[in-house]
Amino acid sequence: MRIARFSIDGNVGYGVVEGDAATEGGPVLDIIKGIPYGDFERSGTKVPLDKVRLLPPVLPSKVVAIGRNYAEHAAELGNEVGDVPVAFLKPSTSVIGPGAAIEYPSFSSELHHEAELAVVIGRMCREVPRERVKDVILGYTCANDVTARDAQQREKQWARAKGFDTSCPLGPWIETELDPADLGIMCTVNGEQRQLGRTSDMVRSIEDLIVHITEAMTLLPGDVVLTGTPAGVGPLNVGDEVAVTIEGIGTLTNKVIKRG
Amino acid sequence: MRIARFSIDGNVGYGVVEGDAATEGGPVLDIIKGIPYGDFERSGTKVPLDKVRLLPPVLPSKVVAIGRNYAEHAAELGNEVGDVPVAFLKPSTSVIGPGAAIEYPSFSSELHHEAELAVVIGRMCREVPRERVKDVILGYTCANDVTARDAQQREKQWARAKGFDTSCPLGPWIETELDPADLGIMCTVNGEQRQLGRTSDMVRSIEDLIVHITEAMTLLPGDVVLTGTPAGVGPLNVGDEVAVTIEGIGTLTNKVIKRG
Repeated sequence: MRIARFSIDGNVGYGVVEGDAATEGGPVLDIIKGIPYGDFERSGTKVPLDKVRLLPPVLPSKVVAIGRNYAEHAAELGNEVGDVPVAFLKPSTSVIGPGAAIEYPSFSSELHHEAELAVVIGRMCREVPRERVKDVILGYTCANDVTARDAQQREKQWARAKGFDTSCPLGPWIETELDPADLGIMCTVNGEQRQLGRTSDMVRSIEDLIVHITEAMTLLPGDVVLTGTPAGVGPLNVGDEVAVTIEGIGTLTNKVIKRG
Repeated sequence: MRIARFSIDGNVGYGVVEGDAATEGGPVLDIIKGIPYGDFERSGTKVPLDKVRLLPPVLPSKVVAIGRNYAEHAAELGNEVGDVPVAFLKPSTSVIGPGAAIEYPSFSSELHHEAELAVVIGRMCREVPRERVKDVILGYTCANDVTARDAQQREKQWARAKGFDTSCPLGPWIETELDPADLGIMCTVNGEQRQLGRTSDMVRSIEDLIVHITEAMTLLPGDVVLTGTPAGVGPLNVGDEVAVTIEGIGTLTNKVIKRG
């Protein structure tokens, strides 16, 4: 099932995506009563997907991200994978939805894309045992861990370099029925392929990451875990259109603009 | 004015603290109608401070903290102050109030206290000019940037070491009328003095820090900026009582327990 968050005529809601581009009349959203955590009902009221504006499919209280989780990517930046996962935080204020603009920050002149599989947490959890990890996951979406590479190298901790406003595009929707073990993940800029990998190349599995994170901190419903980026990261410039596509989920597209 | 958040008989609210230990009958809370951001009214309903449980005085969407902002403290850990402030994030799930327990995390065997002046943001802001910083500040409170020092050294990024549940005690209340330029700041463990400094020894001023942070990210009402810790950091053990006292604000006391 694909769960999207949307706005139409100033109202915000969640809906289940039915059909796709090949469906007669195009895909529609079946509007959800309430919120999609726990059991929920569909209203049966349907709106065409192209009549709504998609929003970030979740409003995370925090995004916990993992660095250096694909060996080839770690190597391309001259880093070693290391014994312990590199966990960092992106704040709620960094999240934007599909189609929203990535604003080039004033303190950087080297913005990079990082296509990533995002895990959306479905229930409050801490100290999750490995075998229970699947129970705390609502689904998966695409993410772009947009990074001010120059600031990242200059500033030691990455709060600004990876936490500036608009640095966390998420979407287009949450896919709840998906085996994340071996999915193709691709990033294009202006239609040209930049990153291509498979989630099976992750150094540490989603189970390992969620055990590691929840050993320290509680995850809340809607919190997001980013699982690292494959090789091929590179520059984004003002005017670029960057797209993250993950097999079985869809495509998250954002344009880069000058911060106004 | 001192603004506290409290619970009594299962109800949660904000109140203005009137009087102190020397006042006849002891200090009371004048309960606020609604929330203390923007203009607010006092209800005139008063409850004795010792009849309520104080909660964290704010519920931040994020805590942005600054490392190495006192030269003597940077030196005691063998670090240089550096050209750029070290900014990192502590998540909302790390925040606890006065009197609440600091839970010793399972992944560490070297927990440290770090007494800090906390700035509470009063209004949504981004790219704040230096001369407008005072307008976005609601007030000040005490913080303890509790740190798993071993994990901090092992893990490169500090999400777990400084972001685990209970690692951000805040309180006891927000003092809204205070010049933060030269305040005594002290940390005791079981009554014994460990840290002693003055905010005038900060390498970078509060104005500098808020300009630096909001150059990258939006701060929301209730967000908190931690301003660094003076020299004297050291171990916390299960059973310890740690107290952060800041001149003109008050004392934030927490006990360290084993995570249950």
